[in-house]
Amino acid sequence: MEESMFFGGDYNPEQWPEDVWLEDVELMRRARVNLTTVGVFSWSRLEPAEGVFDFGWLDRVLDLLHDNDIRVNLATPTASPPPWFTMAYPDAMPVRADGVRLAHGSRDTYCVNAPAYRAASRRIVTALAERYGAHPATAMWHVHNEYGTVCHCDHCATAFRAWLRDRHKSLDALNDRWTTAFWSQHYTSWEQILPPRAAQYRANPAQLLDYRRFFSDALLAHYREQRDLLRVHGDQPVTTNYVMAGWTPLDHWKWSAEVDLVAIDHYTDEPGDGGLAQVAFASDLARSWARGKPWLLMEQGVATMYTPETVVLEPGEHVRRSLEYVSRGAAGVLHFQWRASRGGAEQWHQGMVPHAGADSRVFREVVELGRALSALPPAPPAEAAEVAILWDDEAGWALRNPALPVTGLDFRASVEQAHRVLWQHDLAADFVHPSHDISRYRAVLMPSLYLISDEAAANLAAYVEGGGTLIASYFSGVVDPDTRVRLGGYPGALRDVLGARVEEFHPLTGPVTLSDGTTGDFWSEVVQLTGATATATYADGRPAVTRHQVGSGTAWYVSTRLDAPGYAKVLAQAGVMS
Amino acid sequence: MEESMFFGGDYNPEQWPEDVWLEDVELMRRARVNLTTVGVFSWSRLEPAEGVFDFGWLDRVLDLLHDNDIRVNLATPTASPPPWFTMAYPDAMPVRADGVRLAHGSRDTYCVNAPAYRAASRRIVTALAERYGAHPATAMWHVHNEYGTVCHCDHCATAFRAWLRDRHKSLDALNDRWTTAFWSQHYTSWEQILPPRAAQYRANPAQLLDYRRFFSDALLAHYREQRDLLRVHGDQPVTTNYVMAGWTPLDHWKWSAEVDLVAIDHYTDEPGDGGLAQVAFASDLARSWARGKPWLLMEQGVATMYTPETVVLEPGEHVRRSLEYVSRGAAGVLHFQWRASRGGAEQWHQGMVPHAGADSRVFREVVELGRALSALPPAPPAEAAEVAILWDDEAGWALRNPALPVTGLDFRASVEQAHRVLWQHDLAADFVHPSHDISRYRAVLMPSLYLISDEAAANLAAYVEGGGTLIASYFSGVVDPDTRVRLGGYPGALRDVLGARVEEFHPLTGPVTLSDGTTGDFWSEVVQLTGATATATYADGRPAVTRHQVGSGTAWYVSTRLDAPGYAKVLAQAGVMS
Amino acid sequence: MEESMFFGGDYNPEQWPEDVWLEDVELMRRARVNLTTVGVFSWSRLEPAEGVFDFGWLDRVLDLLHDNDIRVNLATPTASPPPWFTMAYPDAMPVRADGVRLAHGSRDTYCVNAPAYRAASRRIVTALAERYGAHPATAMWHVHNEYGTVCHCDHCATAFRAWLRDRHKSLDALNDRWTTAFWSQHYTSWEQILPPRAAQYRANPAQLLDYRRFFSDALLAHYREQRDLLRVHGDQPVTTNYVMAGWTPLDHWKWSAEVDLVAIDHYTDEPGDGGLAQVAFASDLARSWARGKPWLLMEQGVATMYTPETVVLEPGEHVRRSLEYVSRGAAGVLHFQWRASRGGAEQWHQGMVPHAGADSRVFREVVELGRALSALPPAPPAEAAEVAILWDDEAGWALRNPALPVTGLDFRASVEQAHRVLWQHDLAADFVHPSHDISRYRAVLMPSLYLISDEAAANLAAYVEGGGTLIASYFSGVVDPDTRVRLGGYPGALRDVLGARVEEFHPLTGPVTLSDGTTGDFWSEVVQLTGATATATYADGRPAVTRHQVGSGTAWYVSTRLDAPGYAKVLAQAGVMS
Repeated sequence: MEESMFFGGDYNPEQWPEDVWLEDVELMRRARVNLTTVGVFSWSRLEPAEGVFDFGWLDRVLDLLHDNDIRVNLATPTASPPPWFTMAYPDAMPVRADGVRLAHGSRDTYCVNAPAYRAASRRIVTALAERYGAHPATAMWHVHNEYGTVCHCDHCATAFRAWLRDRHKSLDALNDRWTTAFWSQHYTSWEQILPPRAAQYRANPAQLLDYRRFFSDALLAHYREQRDLLRVHGDQPVTTNYVMAGWTPLDHWKWSAEVDLVAIDHYTDEPGDGGLAQVAFASDLARSWARGKPWLLMEQGVATMYTPETVVLEPGEHVRRSLEYVSRGAAGVLHFQWRASRGGAEQWHQGMVPHAGADSRVFREVVELGRALSALPPAPPAEAAEVAILWDDEAGWALRNPALPVTGLDFRASVEQAHRVLWQHDLAADFVHPSHDISRYRAVLMPSLYLISDEAAANLAAYVEGGGTLIASYFSGVVDPDTRVRLGGYPGALRDVLGARVEEFHPLTGPVTLSDGTTGDFWSEVVQLTGATATATYADGRPAVTRHQVGSGTAWYVSTRLDAPGYAKVLAQAGVMS
Repeated sequence: MEESMFFGGDYNPEQWPEDVWLEDVELMRRARVNLTTVGVFSWSRLEPAEGVFDFGWLDRVLDLLHDNDIRVNLATPTASPPPWFTMAYPDAMPVRADGVRLAHGSRDTYCVNAPAYRAASRRIVTALAERYGAHPATAMWHVHNEYGTVCHCDHCATAFRAWLRDRHKSLDALNDRWTTAFWSQHYTSWEQILPPRAAQYRANPAQLLDYRRFFSDALLAHYREQRDLLRVHGDQPVTTNYVMAGWTPLDHWKWSAEVDLVAIDHYTDEPGDGGLAQVAFASDLARSWARGKPWLLMEQGVATMYTPETVVLEPGEHVRRSLEYVSRGAAGVLHFQWRASRGGAEQWHQGMVPHAGADSRVFREVVELGRALSALPPAPPAEAAEVAILWDDEAGWALRNPALPVTGLDFRASVEQAHRVLWQHDLAADFVHPSHDISRYRAVLMPSLYLISDEAAANLAAYVEGGGTLIASYFSGVVDPDTRVRLGGYPGALRDVLGARVEEFHPLTGPVTLSDGTTGDFWSEVVQLTGATATATYADGRPAVTRHQVGSGTAWYVSTRLDAPGYAKVLAQAGVMS
Repeated sequence: MEESMFFGGDYNPEQWPEDVWLEDVELMRRARVNLTTVGVFSWSRLEPAEGVFDFGWLDRVLDLLHDNDIRVNLATPTASPPPWFTMAYPDAMPVRADGVRLAHGSRDTYCVNAPAYRAASRRIVTALAERYGAHPATAMWHVHNEYGTVCHCDHCATAFRAWLRDRHKSLDALNDRWTTAFWSQHYTSWEQILPPRAAQYRANPAQLLDYRRFFSDALLAHYREQRDLLRVHGDQPVTTNYVMAGWTPLDHWKWSAEVDLVAIDHYTDEPGDGGLAQVAFASDLARSWARGKPWLLMEQGVATMYTPETVVLEPGEHVRRSLEYVSRGAAGVLHFQWRASRGGAEQWHQGMVPHAGADSRVFREVVELGRALSALPPAPPAEAAEVAILWDDEAGWALRNPALPVTGLDFRASVEQAHRVLWQHDLAADFVHPSHDISRYRAVLMPSLYLISDEAAANLAAYVEGGGTLIASYFSGVVDPDTRVRLGGYPGALRDVLGARVEEFHPLTGPVTLSDGTTGDFWSEVVQLTGATATATYADGRPAVTRHQVGSGTAWYVSTRLDAPGYAKVLAQAGVMS
């Protein structure tokens, strides 16, 4: 990677006449921009007819940028096939769960499992790699854009079945793991299995979960196919940009093993300190997923939040936030986008060069940010965090089962809430997968990790046994990887290590005050002590928070949703912080 | 029927390994379970391929239960065809009003009017009847489950037309009754008539109403077909379970004439006393529909409400509610379900044996309930109720017309509100159809019975003439059975008996206080006295509540939605209660 | 047109037996009804089979009305094809954006671009024109009804492409104007262009806007086709009725040039004074669109509002409102409908003869209104308004782009708010198109006119230069006719005349108090003075309201949403009112 911090944004010269390009590079130099993401949605301009390429304009763009010492993060344009493609291959257009086949006219009109789309992707990516793999401006490859388009078509059904065969090996195993005996769903041939399409009533949660796993893998296969083609013609790092949002259907641990650097698109939606906490959360996730590889802020808004209403940041706030990403290890700060679009569906996104032009507060802040980044001393190596928080996309997906005891259970929100308490107390945190080696952490937090495998549970138990501190929150460890309840008392996977057994879940309709004065809401449980002691109780004297000495370690259980001070108090009692 | 009270629940051994079955029967005996509903969703296990049956496991289940003196309410599994069926007969899958054909992967994937589905239903029911009609464990037949899946496909269109021919005889009659002169809907051939599918704007209310009538009959035909096949091979009582909810598309009076006992699935959604009132309401409905036949609580939650958020009942509350069903005449108390499922879409429904197992408060309460039921003396014959409330599903459907003067008009809610006032004053009530013989009742309540036939109106008039007390509430008697307004002043069917004529409806946007201090809201009317006298007036002096002496009886009219004390006051003035 | 005021309503004798007709005319005479709209939804009765006509009943109706001196506004019935038509031509049924093809069973089941529908329309209109063009009762032609059904089918796609070719001439021009470089939407053949159908994400705003323009034109072509056929056989005025609602997809200036009189259907939804303000707003719009031709209230409710809950007007209020339309220039007052329907989807709309019959408050008010209208002296010529408000449907459509900086921007609401302030101060107002000759107005108000053409902007600038007063409100003049942002600082089209440049938009989340004590909310802007002076500032001292002397005129800019007193204060400062 580079020695200096990356600074720049998405650059879409194809939207502008060439005379504007000259002003662009002049302004980029003024702002010390050194990296631009080019070509994200350029397919229709690069391949105006099937197999017919027009690279002239892109040649000129790359040469111009190169001549001005601005490097290029070159995108493959597969996130939006041209209209000619969708007309020629209607079977490659995505299908909703209710069977509606979507039309072009927006972006992301493709089914990643459609053979015609895959062939077209390979063709354009190969052509780009051949032409620009050795171009001196090409500093990085940006595969596709914000992977996340899920489809339910027959191509997907076929691919899903192949994936299921690979995972479950036999129909008997699948029927057992999916509990198809419920509601007469027993499958007697693979061909009977469908994507979760519109049905009369609730879907099978195991089918929903496997479909999410499958789709993450299907998208990843598309990414890997492109990456491998790009590597034939160049040795630049290859990545793709994750959307940091709840809906993103990617298994980030799996994906991050396949990218050369982790890149995130992060749009905050809180003003003030809340926004800084969001920056810290996203940064720590990206850094953790990267597991030692670099990570990069690939997109952020320019001095603006979309919440979804537009909120303009206070003067200086954008610079402050940007530097916070960097202080948490970002290899650079990029934006969507360089120049605000005149037209199109995102004409009201802010740009580094706004509609008003360079004579504007926004561009002046951009220049200021560029100067600040260029003046930064080399980042000191990050202090090793002593606390880890468990992150597992699969567990998060399982908690999106629409038939849980209550609505409102949200893995990501629980994790973010725990992270924010640490952040408020200036405590660094890593995120780890439950099956990772966690032995070096002083404490591991487990916020509502609904699903856990036997192996991961054993990993956690060994960690505590060996002296670690585990702090598990409500509705953790409840189901196995096929989203089947672990029987005999919740949380089936953690009863022994917690020294506690939960007989029932009692969702709350309002807040409750615990014996130690802290406050919980939303959820409570009927906890029996089987070795643990209660450190806080509900009004009726039953345990609310428990502590269990195991080997040389300690396992805590928090059976309600504590507010931030309450959670901080548990962390203090557990010695995680003072 | 049995001498002792039924106690038990849905039992789905196909979801569990056979060693669990042994624990099941041991626990059932401990809890004094004597009736289990078996096989509700077992089709895919009983007929794994078309015409190929696997009864071995069910033989073992029935033998095991029989050996342990536990009787079986044996279900036909037609509420969920196996995946092989839906793949083979895609035309038998249900179609929404917008044309989306639903997929399997949930439950209830069938069109009751599809010939392939009917043939498959007959085959599996015949096979079950032949095999288990004489089995000593078979105590009852449970046909299908919670009838209610409505479809809009072409099979339905064909069947609807046949039903319409039968009802209306001629197109001229249909055009007249449906007022097709409005909006150019005049039909010139039967083939032009469709189910109410997605259209540009509002549907014809007469078409909507006839489609509801038709669908109740279509579902009933499916029930009767199964019942008749079952009776060939056994003499056990045959029934099906009604969902006690607003959406249930069944004409309960018609259906109840075809079942050997009335069975209800009842899930409360109010805590405390409200829940007890709901129990009383559902019980009185079931008992009334049964018209002297037994009735049974076929399903209830286990110590839990789904509102839709899960609410756990207070300790003891489940027993108390269960005994309330019994005290109101239930032949027994069953639950969904015996053992909480590990997986599947309802894994978070509570079970009599919860996930935590038999060592749990819930199972201990189940044992306690079993003991209490077994110790009950034979129920004394119910006291004859002196008050009746009018119930007519057709009138309720008519009030679901989306183009009424206001939204929020709800027949079931109006009836339940009236019933609750009686319940709060410990007054027993029957429900009756408006055309039933009501002469023995001291008083008849008519809460917002929007639709009424000439015959029923004459029945009510004769009842009052003969000395009865009729208390009609707002927006009653307004339309005829084809949902056409009765002209000349509302309520067209009741003007004479009420001695009042309503010129206009004036929906309210807030509460109003009447001259007698009581409070109404939501609705008011401009009432002219044509024989009646006003017992309470609006602020402007116009009549709000009226009383009319007719023959030796009295007819009251309540032209607003009184709150509970206000309605109680009218009942007291009318001598219904003190 | 007529000498006396028109009075009457929609009359649907086909819904009633002929003996009711006799009562109808008797009551009409009693109420002094002189114009009835007949046949709006009669297609299925007039042409019971394709090409087979039944005019006998309509002959009798027209003769009866004529014999009673009641004139007829004869409707073409094309707003609802008969069921036989939709069965024969399924390709003529409308298709939603998600591809669902709608069924008959309601009204407006047609695609205006379907050849079969157009042919059928011509046939029935020709037959009506031939038969009744010379009938002495025929006083006016009412084409179709409430044009507004938008479709997304393949017929529409074909017609849209033809329309686009005509507008943009070349694909290059279209690609440029639609900014198809954004999101890879570059079109390489006309056939690739689709209506805005369901897509993966947001649509292209230029495509959305052109589709609205296209559809207004497509509907207008259908209107003109009918009008021209009617004129062959009669010389009565021809018109159609506009729905005065936000969703109406018509370009009212274009349409009004094609009708012989402007006719509006106006349903208020505010009680009291607010309702009178709505009457004034609708009347002034209709009068302005008519540009000197007559205008008519074609439909209103009868003493009732639908909001959407029914609200009955206070006694006398209906008469008062009706006279207000007349005092603002209406050539008459008609209602929907003469006699309230017994059945059908609008059976709960009030009628001039309500369900209760003629012995009713409502009918007595109708008689009173008829008497009042007949006694009116000839209306004095309207005083010439000295103030104009800009109205442009295209600008309103552009503001319905779903991807604006915030939701809640609404052209019609902004215009109505400005109009109401004038109305509250008894100041007459015209509406004008931005490109009209506005030189005679003392002041021109421009409330949130998002889109403006170069020509119109020049027109406004010349107006100010020449001595006029322009008062522009926030988010005006921002985009060009292809909804592309005008660059270099907002509002690109007005910077010079306003002497101000807006660098950023800052939507507000709550109210703000300006330096002059007035209050804004919802929106603010960062305004730089480039010639103007600030007359009110935000809390941080930046300009909120500005004033710019240009030539002999003045241009004001209001950069926030002022409440009514605040806007009135600006109008007073600008000398528009005292």
